[in-house]
Amino acid sequence: MGITTRPLMSNASRALTITIPAENEHGEVVPTSIAGEYPLTLYVDKREIVTLMTLGAAPEALTIGWLRNQRLIGSLDEIASVQVDWEVDSVSVTTHNGLRDVEEKLGTRTVTTGCGQGTVFGDLMAEVDEIRLPKDIHFSEARLYSLMDAVRKHESIYKQAGAVHGCALAVGQGDACEILMFFEDVGRHNAVDAIAGQMWLDGHEGGDKIFYTTGRLTSEMVIKTAQMGIPVLVSRSGLTQMGWEIARRIGLTMIGRAQGKHYLLFSGQERFTR
Amino acid sequence: MGITTRPLMSNASRALTITIPAENEHGEVVPTSIAGEYPLTLYVDKREIVTLMTLGAAPEALTIGWLRNQRLIGSLDEIASVQVDWEVDSVSVTTHNGLRDVEEKLGTRTVTTGCGQGTVFGDLMAEVDEIRLPKDIHFSEARLYSLMDAVRKHESIYKQAGAVHGCALAVGQGDACEILMFFEDVGRHNAVDAIAGQMWLDGHEGGDKIFYTTGRLTSEMVIKTAQMGIPVLVSRSGLTQMGWEIARRIGLTMIGRAQGKHYLLFSGQERFTR
Repeated sequence: MGITTRPLMSNASRALTITIPAENEHGEVVPTSIAGEYPLTLYVDKREIVTLMTLGAAPEALTIGWLRNQRLIGSLDEIASVQVDWEVDSVSVTTHNGLRDVEEKLGTRTVTTGCGQGTVFGDLMAEVDEIRLPKDIHFSEARLYSLMDAVRKHESIYKQAGAVHGCALAVGQGDACEILMFFEDVGRHNAVDAIAGQMWLDGHEGGDKIFYTTGRLTSEMVIKTAQMGIPVLVSRSGLTQMGWEIARRIGLTMIGRAQGKHYLLFSGQERFTR
Repeated sequence: MGITTRPLMSNASRALTITIPAENEHGEVVPTSIAGEYPLTLYVDKREIVTLMTLGAAPEALTIGWLRNQRLIGSLDEIASVQVDWEVDSVSVTTHNGLRDVEEKLGTRTVTTGCGQGTVFGDLMAEVDEIRLPKDIHFSEARLYSLMDAVRKHESIYKQAGAVHGCALAVGQGDACEILMFFEDVGRHNAVDAIAGQMWLDGHEGGDKIFYTTGRLTSEMVIKTAQMGIPVLVSRSGLTQMGWEIARRIGLTMIGRAQGKHYLLFSGQERFTR
């Protein structure tokens, strides 16, 4: 990756759940944990770009990852600073040289299945066709089961409060699979974006990694995984037709309905061993 | 509502699931149903507005409801025609007098939890504060259980293929609750928008209705329910903090975690009877 200068950053993670009173079917008041959800308005070089609704767990990584996945910045060293201020529900990003093609990219938008991400659909598919995922990495059933085990231990907000999705970046070694980072958010697209941002911050390449999501394998999820250069995608949920078509087109190894000792291998069989 | 002229419309519902081969943990190939997912690019008066990723079950209602929920049109009779053409994955809308405030509304956008919907966040909250939901309608536990029963019978795509969310519009009578319409889509925001569109097409007001969603009760879901004028919102999923805060602010009766004979009443207790 070369040496990058890390931007100046705030560290403004919020309290992730609150407890509210709710009445159950017996008329009893039960204290109930619910997930936080806050608007975070993104300004880049003092220009308002978008408002993201987020759990607030990793607002700096989310901001960087959103800019990365929108292709508005090309590398971390384009960013001078990322300052979150929850007093005004905003994050202010300063760049060294401005955003790339900002007028064009913020013009016509694609409202993807999981969220609106402002990318022209035709351009997105053209970009996807240029992605080359490494063919020489392998993923075994033992690693898959190891990943599932590790994920179960991490889903804390979901277990407490529901209403969030989780994403993990993992790496395999022998029969084991280690989680390098795990993010939860009220929107699964936010959780993916936070992973993309943190990968840059920690200097991780995607080529030898595994991406896990609790969410569905829609076109958006497959495209983002491929854009991060990650060759293996695992989910405990189902699959859509376009997710499947794009995964086959780019040769992504994709596993869904992974729960307990069950799973379905949908594409990219050549990387998988039992 | 007065008399409205129904627009000229195509009727271009697509096949909703396809069957693909997947390999299970025993290495067996199992035919697996997956949900369709297609890009649908919206043109209004020949101008490209957005691309929605959809299951394709109700593209005309989705289109009309999306324009309604974006506040780009104010009533059905502003629309002259809605023509879906899957050959080119697009829908062409013709209006009588153009869209409202299109430049302003398609400028800065809010990427909501479930999707990107292009509404300036501050404007959205100002609009929410003007909503008055009827106080004189009641919702009983018997009706809730009747609704849950009815919903169970409708979730066909979800049962077959997973990876979709469902929404229903229902009305109560005595102890029973009848489903007036039910839509599923790969994004839950699409399912809500299709309901909003079909309500206009069928001439339904929201004031005496109940809105059901399989999805989470995020700010977006609460705001859209209120914008449709519906005073009761039911979900089988959890709740976020902002969903709760907005529901209380506007006096919405909101029930979550509704499954079997269990539920949690989160807000608007005054309309609910056991």
